[in-house]
Amino acid sequence: MLQGSQTWMFNSKPVIIASAAVGGPFEAQGALADDFDVLHTDIWIGEKSFEKAEKALLQEACETAITKAGLTKQQVQFFISGDLMNQIISSSFAARELGMPYLGIFGACSSSMESLALGSLLVDSKAADYVITGASSHNVSAEKQFRYPTEYGAQKPPTAQWTVTGAGAALVSSKGNGPKVVCATIGRIVDKGISDPFNMGAAMAPAAADTILSHFNDLGIDPAYYDLIATGDLGQIGHVIAADLLEKSGLRIPPEIFTDCGTLIYNQDQPVMAGASGCACSATVTYGHFLNRMKKGELKRILVIATGALHSPISYQQKETIPCIAHAVSIEI
Amino acid sequence: MLQGSQTWMFNSKPVIIASAAVGGPFEAQGALADDFDVLHTDIWIGEKSFEKAEKALLQEACETAITKAGLTKQQVQFFISGDLMNQIISSSFAARELGMPYLGIFGACSSSMESLALGSLLVDSKAADYVITGASSHNVSAEKQFRYPTEYGAQKPPTAQWTVTGAGAALVSSKGNGPKVVCATIGRIVDKGISDPFNMGAAMAPAAADTILSHFNDLGIDPAYYDLIATGDLGQIGHVIAADLLEKSGLRIPPEIFTDCGTLIYNQDQPVMAGASGCACSATVTYGHFLNRMKKGELKRILVIATGALHSPISYQQKETIPCIAHAVSIEI
Repeated sequence: MLQGSQTWMFNSKPVIIASAAVGGPFEAQGALADDFDVLHTDIWIGEKSFEKAEKALLQEACETAITKAGLTKQQVQFFISGDLMNQIISSSFAARELGMPYLGIFGACSSSMESLALGSLLVDSKAADYVITGASSHNVSAEKQFRYPTEYGAQKPPTAQWTVTGAGAALVSSKGNGPKVVCATIGRIVDKGISDPFNMGAAMAPAAADTILSHFNDLGIDPAYYDLIATGDLGQIGHVIAADLLEKSGLRIPPEIFTDCGTLIYNQDQPVMAGASGCACSATVTYGHFLNRMKKGELKRILVIATGALHSPISYQQKETIPCIAHAVSIEI
Repeated sequence: MLQGSQTWMFNSKPVIIASAAVGGPFEAQGALADDFDVLHTDIWIGEKSFEKAEKALLQEACETAITKAGLTKQQVQFFISGDLMNQIISSSFAARELGMPYLGIFGACSSSMESLALGSLLVDSKAADYVITGASSHNVSAEKQFRYPTEYGAQKPPTAQWTVTGAGAALVSSKGNGPKVVCATIGRIVDKGISDPFNMGAAMAPAAADTILSHFNDLGIDPAYYDLIATGDLGQIGHVIAADLLEKSGLRIPPEIFTDCGTLIYNQDQPVMAGASGCACSATVTYGHFLNRMKKGELKRILVIATGALHSPISYQQKETIPCIAHAVSIEI
């Protein structure tokens, strides 16, 4: 570990021995459809509510990753997961089905990398041999809870983003083959006074920049160390702001290696305004697309900075601004 | 660490160098009033909403613990916290004021021990020298969100519990003097089919029993090892059920050392039905009362098993039963 910094170095280099990405019908039309393990044609995933559908996606992602690793649920010691639902019911109800000891976390859309960071810490500190980490979101359960029932057909501004329907899971192990988790930089809250929940990319960009700066400062390395640096769900607007803020702070990331999961997952002709968001955005793109590219030899070292907007409908109604956070995890093969 | 078990052994024995308990006016009339660091006469804590009041309590508990440790906020590397509010806004907004890197967690009322377990793991694995862990709840913010606005004056059955208004925080360090965190047993979800949110003690009791059994099984020790074994907020009904379930499983805990934070915090004449609940119940009783008793030499070894009911109003409305969990932390001086 790097004493006194906000970055945890995992000296034993925990291995992602398997991962899975599961999506819905809109993701099946997206640019990264080939990188999903399972794509559903039914937005309800055969369930009676969107909340139950989201839980089913998360459970399926975890079970798929466990199966791909050649393990049984009984061999996996801990499940760490978070989601956007009130009281993270997707994670807790999935944990009920999975059965292993469970740590619920909440970092909004940063939950994907918060859970991977903690899972890797558990493995690195020998608190576990096998940990499954996950995150999920569902477009309609999120719209219903945070905004309006979709039946209203409420219009959205071009700064709004589209919540991904899906779930991603990674099985982190002390041994085995696969991409290795090298370190994690835990973010602090950054709130620059934006209160518009239809402009979360702009709200979260300063938090992403803060964590990225801390990461390179803690490690004393250069962005060129990585083949790819990907923010979680800043979208088109937030990603440009983050690049700008970093450049003004003296850190230039070459545009050809700096991307955002929220701008990658859908096709140009899908009506997603400024891009994708939701816990499943960075979770599915990382555990599907990025890890597949690493296994193909196209990428060797990546840094994923998942961003989260930590407001609630109540805090918004009470005129609060949006506290944002970003957690970064570096993965190498 | 105990490989293959659900218990983390902290070989370096992280130290709780300071802790704090903060409460409201109802807690000031309670049986443990003398063990609180701060007691407010105003249920609004001078804020404009109950949500902001809860955040103020949590922030105050953390700042009080940091001050008592003789540290500054800048010296504390990580803040780990959870609460009952949707999107854990009490924790995230407190994190904005505190400023250090932040890991949001959610385990409902088990959040107190989930955060202490993770904070101790961070210190034990040398990921941090100083971590502040906390949890909060507010009677009226919880009633408003989970049940009815209190102005309705809705009646409650005798199995219901009273959510504690307060917050507790512990400063965990790699060095210094104070009670030491010896190990933590991370619980799994147990759901025996109870769906009544006015009977959460009964719902959570099997989860408490499961974690307690795992703890003693993992460690190979006897309940008599401890001077006190305290569940978090089972209340009068749930605590008896847990004792019963344990006895049926072959583990008898002598009643004189087996207690519940939810039966301790208030006086007999306070109208709290089956007892207290809320994240702040186990947090304030542990970080105030129990640690004070340890420092006075009255207790040497304690095990706190914080229990959480992981449902949401939506999951209840969708006819789901309540998934419950319990995390146990053992503390010795």
